[in-house]
Amino acid sequence: SIGYSFKDKSHIVKAFTHSSYYDNTITGCYQRLEFLGDAVLDYLITRYIFEDKKEFNPGELTDLRQALVNNSYFGCLAVKYCFHKYLKYLSCTGMGIIDAFDKKFKSNEKEIIYGHFLLINENETEQSEDVEVPKILGDIFESVAGAIYLDSGFSLDAVWKVYYPLIKSELEYFSENVPLHPIRMLYEADEKTKFEKAIVLDSKRVIVNLWFRGELYEGEGRNTKFAKIVAAKKAVKTIAKVAV
Amino acid sequence: SIGYSFKDKSHIVKAFTHSSYYDNTITGCYQRLEFLGDAVLDYLITRYIFEDKKEFNPGELTDLRQALVNNSYFGCLAVKYCFHKYLKYLSCTGMGIIDAFDKKFKSNEKEIIYGHFLLINENETEQSEDVEVPKILGDIFESVAGAIYLDSGFSLDAVWKVYYPLIKSELEYFSENVPLHPIRMLYEADEKTKFEKAIVLDSKRVIVNLWFRGELYEGEGRNTKFAKIVAAKKAVKTIAKVAV
Repeated sequence: SIGYSFKDKSHIVKAFTHSSYYDNTITGCYQRLEFLGDAVLDYLITRYIFEDKKEFNPGELTDLRQALVNNSYFGCLAVKYCFHKYLKYLSCTGMGIIDAFDKKFKSNEKEIIYGHFLLINENETEQSEDVEVPKILGDIFESVAGAIYLDSGFSLDAVWKVYYPLIKSELEYFSENVPLHPIRMLYEADEKTKFEKAIVLDSKRVIVNLWFRGELYEGEGRNTKFAKIVAAKKAVKTIAKVAV
Repeated sequence: SIGYSFKDKSHIVKAFTHSSYYDNTITGCYQRLEFLGDAVLDYLITRYIFEDKKEFNPGELTDLRQALVNNSYFGCLAVKYCFHKYLKYLSCTGMGIIDAFDKKFKSNEKEIIYGHFLLINENETEQSEDVEVPKILGDIFESVAGAIYLDSGFSLDAVWKVYYPLIKSELEYFSENVPLHPIRMLYEADEKTKFEKAIVLDSKRVIVNLWFRGELYEGEGRNTKFAKIVAAKKAVKTIAKVAV
């Protein structure tokens, strides 16, 4: 239980209804609530990190917000707090991908969440691959926030009361240890850092090659953004090693 | 006057102080306030368009927010309401660019604002170029919102009371006439729409070629994003003509 009791149950039903779920013709799908919840969470988290006594500089604020208001991070939390058990979604392939992520996540919760925050774990093996979080999971984490906001008569406090406990541990940890975006880290270390043009495979997956300090790094992902981050994370490890 | 009286004047001084302005060592520059104001305006505008009785679909909400919570649009408003007269900015080139934009804007206010919203004006000549809005103008429109928010003790109502009148006319007009993002329009009209790799000129300006329905369109701008939009706007006109 998330600790909020809905006055109008249709709000929470809608928050969990994917557009594929034609059976529910009464409430419609979660997309409008997701749009609303995204803005509400963005505002609440931005306010929280702005008020931090350390008075983060603008670059730190940007990196923190990018890490904390983030579909992949929200997707991890959706699985952690079992939001996906309530999802109404008519796609066997889709549900299979979600279940597979659920299993993977439960087997190594901390590393996946922290890995998302781009920390360089010394113990991480070369083989550890980047885990892609199904987008639909982050979506419902946002749509439920939108549903609470709407149901409570546009109360930001009502949303924060439910969501703050869910994000508290990363909020506190990463406010102490501001994550740096790997692509930004590379440009700061070497302004000649350069991504080559993305290559789209027949499987629709994307490969991006990255030049950093004269070395070539390859990243693969479901889109260009992910592929770039995967390549950048490989290259960033070389900075971390040098720093040690 | 914007109709808000600051309890602590240092907030508004900070909101207008660019990081180049070393003279002001007391308040620091506007970047943290810009970060805060951006989130506040995003939330307030999102809430407004979400509550619209027409119940926009998710695509319309996304397009509206993208058009309304937008550095270029905010920059137009900063000049319209003379925010730039208070800017503390130590760069002659920079100030020259702002003055030039100010003159251009005053000569054709409506077309520039509406052009930003990507409307296809039938009377627009082939030569009419896309006007680039200096980023610093949008920044101070946001930082002043951040300053009011902070000065009023985190009151969203205080910000909305000042900002709603400033954005009211576009908010109402574009809620009636939802702008479509030109790039999205092209993909909706022809899913084989394709941008070629950006070419960076010696002048740092960027050229992007776009293939749409077998025709080539060229866009030029200060970065890839602008160059793509310029190319897309050219191509979009062919759809509009066909539709007429």
